[in-house]
Amino acid sequence: MDSIVVRYLEKPKLSKPIFIEGLPGIGNVGKLAAEHLIDELGAKKFADIFSKYFPPQVMVQDGGLVKLVNNELYYVKNVGRGVDVIFLVGDYQGMNPEGQYELTDYIIRILKEFGVEEIFTLGGYGVGRIVEKPKVYGAATDEGLVKEMEEYGVVFSRGEPGTGIVGASGLLLGLGALHDIRSVCFMGETSGYFVDPKSARAVLEVLIQALGVEVDFSELEDKAKQIDAITARLRETEVKPEEPAGGRDLGYIG
Amino acid sequence: MDSIVVRYLEKPKLSKPIFIEGLPGIGNVGKLAAEHLIDELGAKKFADIFSKYFPPQVMVQDGGLVKLVNNELYYVKNVGRGVDVIFLVGDYQGMNPEGQYELTDYIIRILKEFGVEEIFTLGGYGVGRIVEKPKVYGAATDEGLVKEMEEYGVVFSRGEPGTGIVGASGLLLGLGALHDIRSVCFMGETSGYFVDPKSARAVLEVLIQALGVEVDFSELEDKAKQIDAITARLRETEVKPEEPAGGRDLGYIG
Amino acid sequence: MDSIVVRYLEKPKLSKPIFIEGLPGIGNVGKLAAEHLIDELGAKKFADIFSKYFPPQVMVQDGGLVKLVNNELYYVKNVGRGVDVIFLVGDYQGMNPEGQYELTDYIIRILKEFGVEEIFTLGGYGVGRIVEKPKVYGAATDEGLVKEMEEYGVVFSRGEPGTGIVGASGLLLGLGALHDIRSVCFMGETSGYFVDPKSARAVLEVLIQALGVEVDFSELEDKAKQIDAITARLRETEVKPEEPAGGRDLGYIG
Amino acid sequence: MDSIVVRYLEKPKLSKPIFIEGLPGIGNVGKLAAEHLIDELGAKKFADIFSKYFPPQVMVQDGGLVKLVNNELYYVKNVGRGVDVIFLVGDYQGMNPEGQYELTDYIIRILKEFGVEEIFTLGGYGVGRIVEKPKVYGAATDEGLVKEMEEYGVVFSRGEPGTGIVGASGLLLGLGALHDIRSVCFMGETSGYFVDPKSARAVLEVLIQALGVEVDFSELEDKAKQIDAITARLRETEVKPEEPAGGRDLGYIG
Repeated sequence: MDSIVVRYLEKPKLSKPIFIEGLPGIGNVGKLAAEHLIDELGAKKFADIFSKYFPPQVMVQDGGLVKLVNNELYYVKNVGRGVDVIFLVGDYQGMNPEGQYELTDYIIRILKEFGVEEIFTLGGYGVGRIVEKPKVYGAATDEGLVKEMEEYGVVFSRGEPGTGIVGASGLLLGLGALHDIRSVCFMGETSGYFVDPKSARAVLEVLIQALGVEVDFSELEDKAKQIDAITARLRETEVKPEEPAGGRDLGYIG
Repeated sequence: MDSIVVRYLEKPKLSKPIFIEGLPGIGNVGKLAAEHLIDELGAKKFADIFSKYFPPQVMVQDGGLVKLVNNELYYVKNVGRGVDVIFLVGDYQGMNPEGQYELTDYIIRILKEFGVEEIFTLGGYGVGRIVEKPKVYGAATDEGLVKEMEEYGVVFSRGEPGTGIVGASGLLLGLGALHDIRSVCFMGETSGYFVDPKSARAVLEVLIQALGVEVDFSELEDKAKQIDAITARLRETEVKPEEPAGGRDLGYIG
Repeated sequence: MDSIVVRYLEKPKLSKPIFIEGLPGIGNVGKLAAEHLIDELGAKKFADIFSKYFPPQVMVQDGGLVKLVNNELYYVKNVGRGVDVIFLVGDYQGMNPEGQYELTDYIIRILKEFGVEEIFTLGGYGVGRIVEKPKVYGAATDEGLVKEMEEYGVVFSRGEPGTGIVGASGLLLGLGALHDIRSVCFMGETSGYFVDPKSARAVLEVLIQALGVEVDFSELEDKAKQIDAITARLRETEVKPEEPAGGRDLGYIG
Repeated sequence: MDSIVVRYLEKPKLSKPIFIEGLPGIGNVGKLAAEHLIDELGAKKFADIFSKYFPPQVMVQDGGLVKLVNNELYYVKNVGRGVDVIFLVGDYQGMNPEGQYELTDYIIRILKEFGVEEIFTLGGYGVGRIVEKPKVYGAATDEGLVKEMEEYGVVFSRGEPGTGIVGASGLLLGLGALHDIRSVCFMGETSGYFVDPKSARAVLEVLIQALGVEVDFSELEDKAKQIDAITARLRETEVKPEEPAGGRDLGYIG
């Protein structure tokens, strides 16, 4: 079989669309942010991507129906300041380095077909402690993007993250540059221990400025409250004995 | 060498056969069930499948003769309500995700040649405790199959199993759907700690209704008694001290 | 690069040669036996096999000269009852299942070129205890070979070894059979904890009968004495306290 | 995508250049040495090598700009006794055996294009203890190189290192020999616990004699002092209690 297979439900005509990636990763920050934006903007699925670089697995959905694990492409036209957008979300990233390269290369070839000239990748930046007000770090392929994004509050600095950016969010930048696509990665600070809707919101606050759209955050806020409740309980039961001077900030708990 | 090689002993002419998969897996439920049905229906081997996705290994059989590890296809004609059936059994599933995808895709291409329009995959659903009366969970590619199988007592529900279905039993559904083959997976509840003939029987009770065949279960019952004897002894020696109120049900022993 | 590369030093003309494999494995029994026979019969190297399925490694030899890790083919003509023999020895077996299949398939294609109709593979059978008089177990592709080898004292029985035969010694039989080559594997009992020249000798005692050759064992005996000295010291220091009734047989020490 | 991609910034015309490899490895000895020489000789980058055998990762550099992880080729013309040199440095070696073979083979094909007839590979030789005056061990493809390098103080001996040479530094010799390229590997003794600029300097002391160049070592010396300070502190805090007779030599601390 082909290593990667795409099935189009539709081939939308788009005008120099912006591409936004939000695959699973640390704190699922990128995934939460992209899926929230898809919902809020009413984006429409137009393609399924299957691959032997994903696990050999089906998910069981409503009523016992199965779905082969995949990645999915969505589009929305003429939002914010009049831009078209393509989204990439999914169940998994490629399971090994070769799969990561092959899938990212494959995606980029699709993007070239649709005339994409700008990529935004969304992810988390694991800092090993619970963060009350997550910053958004950035990394980009050119200085123009750095300057533009700094205006929206994104922090750019050498060596952040120190390990570089691993996975699709990094590789889309790296391979994208080889195909002359400008791109920037937004990484919301996150503990790395929980799914993190608060960090996803921080990333979205940047993204909506870049796109010029407005979205409602109530659903993400609900999720954030649930996670906060869980972590608060964990603080009480586990951390207090060791940290009696009960401050708001837990500091490093890793 | 080719990654997968098939050797036909015979190319039977079959009429829209149903395909039943029972490869090794959790509790060997699927394997036990499929092999029992092959024996009881007198199905005949017609092909060997070898692959570098299997381990580099031969099995030693009667009289010191070797057999390269493989998968095998069997067929039987005109059973139950007049259906032809193809069976897939074997020593191993593919050893890595790529192998799983390649082998399943290869099998599906064979099935298309033989005109298969319906797939039943058999497996176990590990619940981490010994189950006296195993339920059979199902997952399917379309609602018609769900309704039909619910009549035979199969339980369909979103998120069961929560991890999805991993391996050949899941992938045959997922890739089968891409080739427009309807399919359903039957998963017998099983502890996951032992080979489980009781769970295999539960799966078969469903399957024989679906096929309209009758089979004798005495051999499976014998195997089940042997396993029961072993687990009973284990209960006495290991669990009693911790669970003095000797009930029939062990609850979670994981 | 090609996955496997062969470099011929010479292309000998051989008459229906017997093929003997002795690659590294449990106790290095097969390797010791094959290398001893190569020395004693004065076999000549005629080919180097390199492969990306071996480790990316060079060995450092006399005078600091390097050798890329490889497998090597040797031949000898007209020995014993007038047979030609090809030997396979080397630094490593393939490092993963795919490599095992590809290398074995590649070797078999070479053997077909040279007209090989019979394969002997040599290995160890790990039993987890020190064995004073190692038996030689066998497994074969046809009953004629079983009968012939039983006359030389080889033990054939279903399920020995229970795990089947893993690696080149097994795969040459399994894939060989698909190419209509008769083959038999000789496995000398060995603890599995040491390089085992005594087990290698036991395998050779069978092999020289099968080939009708005579060889001197003094070098293997010297190696065996060295190993015996080491294991004797280990018995004294480690095992005695637990096994005061100092018998000759250590029983299971695993 | 292609497994390996090269992007030339320039295709320099070189006269029988010497090739020097210094990829990451034990103590980063080879990498430190090669990068120092590139700086001191003012060598110029002329090619980037990207590959799916590297991790799926970008590094974050000055000002938040990203760089896809890669290997890089540099050249310098007419240094020392009038030789041209090509350097290979980079972020990573290939991540698995296949990648090591493919990348090394690819590099060698490039070298053949540029007329390279001689390869120097640089690495560390981990000895598991801190070494005050690191020796430089060598391994080569022919005796002429052994004799030449012995004059510069390189130690050649069978079985050093006992495990052979694993990775690019070894494979370039092994595969190079198959392409009739003479080559030698220089391995500086190193503990294996730290990045080791002192060992890198020892390797460079040999290399500059071989090339007939002069270089300033002050930068490496600075780095060595930093590392010495760190290890000295570690000695005080961790080792002293166990080794009260405070000698200069720590002996084995592994």
